[in-house]
Amino acid sequence: MCKKTVKVAMIGMGERGKQLMEPLLKMEDVTVTAVCDAYEDRTVAAAQTVEKENGNVPFASCDYKEVLARADVDVAVISTSWEYHIAIAIEAMHRGVFAAMEVGGTYNLQECFDLVEAYEQTKTPFFFLENCCYGRRELMCLNMARAGAFGEIVHCDGAYKHDLRKEVSFGKENRHYRLPHYIHHNCENYPTHELGPIAKILGINRGNRMVRLVSMASKSRGLAQYIRDTKPEDSELLHTEFKQGDIVTTVITCENGETVTLTLDTTLPRIYSRNFTVHGTKGMYQEDGDYVFLEKDLTVDIAEIDVDPQKIWKNADKYGEEYDNDLWKHKSEGMIAGGHGGMDYLVLRAMLSAARGESYPAIDAYDAAAWMCITALSEQSIANGSAPVEIPDFTNGKYKNRTEKSSGKYALDF
Amino acid sequence: MCKKTVKVAMIGMGERGKQLMEPLLKMEDVTVTAVCDAYEDRTVAAAQTVEKENGNVPFASCDYKEVLARADVDVAVISTSWEYHIAIAIEAMHRGVFAAMEVGGTYNLQECFDLVEAYEQTKTPFFFLENCCYGRRELMCLNMARAGAFGEIVHCDGAYKHDLRKEVSFGKENRHYRLPHYIHHNCENYPTHELGPIAKILGINRGNRMVRLVSMASKSRGLAQYIRDTKPEDSELLHTEFKQGDIVTTVITCENGETVTLTLDTTLPRIYSRNFTVHGTKGMYQEDGDYVFLEKDLTVDIAEIDVDPQKIWKNADKYGEEYDNDLWKHKSEGMIAGGHGGMDYLVLRAMLSAARGESYPAIDAYDAAAWMCITALSEQSIANGSAPVEIPDFTNGKYKNRTEKSSGKYALDF
Repeated sequence: MCKKTVKVAMIGMGERGKQLMEPLLKMEDVTVTAVCDAYEDRTVAAAQTVEKENGNVPFASCDYKEVLARADVDVAVISTSWEYHIAIAIEAMHRGVFAAMEVGGTYNLQECFDLVEAYEQTKTPFFFLENCCYGRRELMCLNMARAGAFGEIVHCDGAYKHDLRKEVSFGKENRHYRLPHYIHHNCENYPTHELGPIAKILGINRGNRMVRLVSMASKSRGLAQYIRDTKPEDSELLHTEFKQGDIVTTVITCENGETVTLTLDTTLPRIYSRNFTVHGTKGMYQEDGDYVFLEKDLTVDIAEIDVDPQKIWKNADKYGEEYDNDLWKHKSEGMIAGGHGGMDYLVLRAMLSAARGESYPAIDAYDAAAWMCITALSEQSIANGSAPVEIPDFTNGKYKNRTEKSSGKYALDF
Repeated sequence: MCKKTVKVAMIGMGERGKQLMEPLLKMEDVTVTAVCDAYEDRTVAAAQTVEKENGNVPFASCDYKEVLARADVDVAVISTSWEYHIAIAIEAMHRGVFAAMEVGGTYNLQECFDLVEAYEQTKTPFFFLENCCYGRRELMCLNMARAGAFGEIVHCDGAYKHDLRKEVSFGKENRHYRLPHYIHHNCENYPTHELGPIAKILGINRGNRMVRLVSMASKSRGLAQYIRDTKPEDSELLHTEFKQGDIVTTVITCENGETVTLTLDTTLPRIYSRNFTVHGTKGMYQEDGDYVFLEKDLTVDIAEIDVDPQKIWKNADKYGEEYDNDLWKHKSEGMIAGGHGGMDYLVLRAMLSAARGESYPAIDAYDAAAWMCITALSEQSIANGSAPVEIPDFTNGKYKNRTEKSSGKYALDF
């Protein structure tokens, strides 16, 4: 197998940039030709890593525009702080550089329109690196949905339940972008890990679209308590007021009548969950409990199970035998070595497949705009006492009958 | 132990009435002196059951007003269809009969005000028979909240996730009141099983109150599919349109800044769950996964658990050793024999304790009004595109500093 090497520029070399570069450096058909971060020390360190791992000396700069102007860059992997993602992606597209953008929401609705406009003007492909679309259960449920196993799907849940108090409150020390966000904003600030896989299952931007949301935020107590407990000497932080509510609940209605709930839960003690749930007229999957419940497989009266529902818990692996995506049935070595249990490797391979022109991007600019805008719109709803907010159609009507769809082994579209 | 016998009238002898009468007939300090149902056959059958089990012949009538006018009735246990609950309870209070009312929501906001007014005018005690307030985990979490184990509580979830398709769609055959409700209404029609325990934990009507809600309903597909699959010969049902959405999500904001989500999920295939979740600055409990997570008990970096959160699942029994309510630590024989795993017995004993004047009712008319009104208000929100709806204060300001609180072993108030 001889494939043309893809020349990748890494823009943004914080923790996530390093995580993404690691599997890329191991891929034989990829060369990291440039590295970039606003902080010089990170840029230098990244260049050293590339040289050490792969032998080549990459172009290194703190100015992403310099990087994007270079001839030896096919793909820009953008993993800066959230607020610069879209601007850099747009610049890349205008330079004819394939833009592979790390996830996050946006507080600025206009940016979502700008992203789509840049894609439509330039036709430079764009890929949104939502790794959770390639999670094992998420792909299994996509297969089950395609096979009709859930019947007609009427509701999905998703969440980003991840205790980030340490990361946020040590934001100054570790230069983490989340700290100012939690001080100045109150919204569903990280919707795409859960919404992405759900949107694919519900055919959002492919025959369906999200039309309206409402959002509610609890009070903000978790970070302040954590700082009192762990950083009592930091008087500046100790007196910082955090605007971000601890739990934000957002409910979305889709044109085809489905509802979707999203929960942000990042500043209280807890265990990790994306609370991924798909529910239809013939059955369901739920992450908390890790169970599939299909009516056709019911051999006793449901009342017998309702007495002890835990009987069903943790049965999802069994359904994997039939419905797991082949990517998970036959895990590659690179996947096992890659981050986040294999998802990072898969989303990068899907991106590279699109960068080579083998498929329309599995997650495109319309997807990114639709998923990221939830942050801005939830902020608006919360600021207005949970008033309903309309969700724009970034495809301008094209969602009704899209022809470009992802294909091949990394396909996510029906 | 010699206690005066409490004379109970059973009003409403459908399935729930029978379930409630069964443990009452076994109690030595209770005599069922009257039975009543709008259907004569049920009334006759109930009277026969009383005579067979206890030897006495109760007064039997299809007219609840006749029953409430009798001198040999101390307590009326009201378990008719939802829409008559409040009217009968009000009549009872005006007759000086202690009103013990089975749960359900109300589509009529005014009724909630009427219920409170009747109590304030008559001062006849009223008890809302929300059995889930006496669930093992619910009482454990109430104890944990009282002990400060969760820190400051910022969010709770609850749900009524119970596949009722058979019950609803066979409503004509079994004269079940739910059928017309699912045809004519679209709302959170059964909020109290989950909201009751949460309201007690959050101190609703006791220093705190619910101020606003939004509600969203998914499309309605579950019942129609079920009828096509199981009753294809019933042409009337087959062509019935159900207004009730399959999944209704309601988010409530409280005056003290907490949020509460309620989910109704009764017309799709699934296993039972009330999704009871309590989350504070020091830890949480969640029913799905049945786990307690307290930060103080964390011995490793949370990142180690986040890789496999299932490690924590099903650890709640361990916390029961410290935090279980004594009622559950030392289960009585009556409790084990009673319905719904013991909850029915406990709520009935709590009610009888109030009927004897040993305690202010653990669940009173203000609680019932606040919890039941969610049905009417969610219907309003859904009908108006999920617009936010204000939640009335039925205590008229008294919630800020209530003096009457439940006490003794069945107490639910802080």
